[in-house]
Amino acid sequence: MRLAELSEASGVSTATIKYYLRERLLPQGRRISATQADYDESHLRRLRLVRALIQVGRVPVATAREVLSAVDDDSLGRTIRLGAALWSLPHGEDPDDNDPEVAVARREVDLLLDRLGWSDACEIGDLSPNYRALVAVMVRLKHLGYPCDADYLQPYAEQLGRLAVLDLDNLETLPTAVEQVEAAVADAVLFEPVLLCLRRLAQEQESARRFGL
Amino acid sequence: MRLAELSEASGVSTATIKYYLRERLLPQGRRISATQADYDESHLRRLRLVRALIQVGRVPVATAREVLSAVDDDSLGRTIRLGAALWSLPHGEDPDDNDPEVAVARREVDLLLDRLGWSDACEIGDLSPNYRALVAVMVRLKHLGYPCDADYLQPYAEQLGRLAVLDLDNLETLPTAVEQVEAAVADAVLFEPVLLCLRRLAQEQESARRFGL
Repeated sequence: MRLAELSEASGVSTATIKYYLRERLLPQGRRISATQADYDESHLRRLRLVRALIQVGRVPVATAREVLSAVDDDSLGRTIRLGAALWSLPHGEDPDDNDPEVAVARREVDLLLDRLGWSDACEIGDLSPNYRALVAVMVRLKHLGYPCDADYLQPYAEQLGRLAVLDLDNLETLPTAVEQVEAAVADAVLFEPVLLCLRRLAQEQESARRFGL
Repeated sequence: MRLAELSEASGVSTATIKYYLRERLLPQGRRISATQADYDESHLRRLRLVRALIQVGRVPVATAREVLSAVDDDSLGRTIRLGAALWSLPHGEDPDDNDPEVAVARREVDLLLDRLGWSDACEIGDLSPNYRALVAVMVRLKHLGYPCDADYLQPYAEQLGRLAVLDLDNLETLPTAVEQVEAAVADAVLFEPVLLCLRRLAQEQESARRFGL
């Protein structure tokens, strides 16, 4: 399809598409004349993701470019590729290693991963910004007077492990690795608010069930 | 305990405590002389919550006051009291009722609640900002080209229902209704980032298990 058709199919203006092309967030189309290029379904899909990242995730353009270059890097194994794309997204703060509580929180997280049998997550460990963010948030909760330890987190982590199985089952319905990684990025940006709404609705339901309205 | 002791026990400066007292975020202590008051454990607990709301939740003072007045309103039934406290927190956007997609999303949410047997959540319906936020976020996903319907959401909602049972079990270990509602508010502000970190770690683990590192 031509630029105007891509714009119509995506609902993104031609000016914005040209901006994304210039910023290398969207790959160039196949040149068919000096002034025209042809775009396909992969451009439409990528445009959707760029819009989700920038408009909803409020990700800076440079960060979006970094995320997308990991999405496209087929030299990486699937898990590392997924990881590299997701790890490039903005995430929680890192722990402050001068704080003595960090070592305590780290021990609790390692104990938790060990008990869950999440040996791969344990091996990735500190490399993962999600591991570091979990340690940081546990330190913060401790300082605020709301400590949580491996015992408290374990049943939640087990449930979330079941959700992750669903997530990966859904990803695996997609035919190619690049589509899977794109979908994982879209999920992280777009689906987390859905889950938080659903969780709060579930709490309302459970409260009503126990205590009445 | 005196003001200085409350400050030491909580790690909050006396100036900040005085500010919270003036703003009616913290109830006055029991007057023991013209210039001194006595504070107890309930002040310490409330101070912890105020700090969580303001410093972590970045809730404006007026909103925090509204949340806390619902926490303290023992004329309400437990579910409504919980709801009133949680609903006063900042939450997702409301749907734009001029958008025809809103009716579509609303039907999917109602279908979902019905299938889950969440009849109380259904009855609360649109009154709940979480219901409205879920509709709004589904509309947004649709416009971005990532539609999700009741079929897609159902297994996630079922898992989150199990998490809500854990949440309420934890709440019920607390002795009084006010402590339970306080804990639910702290959970909404502080524990959601923990769950999102855990979910992403769970995805990493599941990805490594399926695809290798």
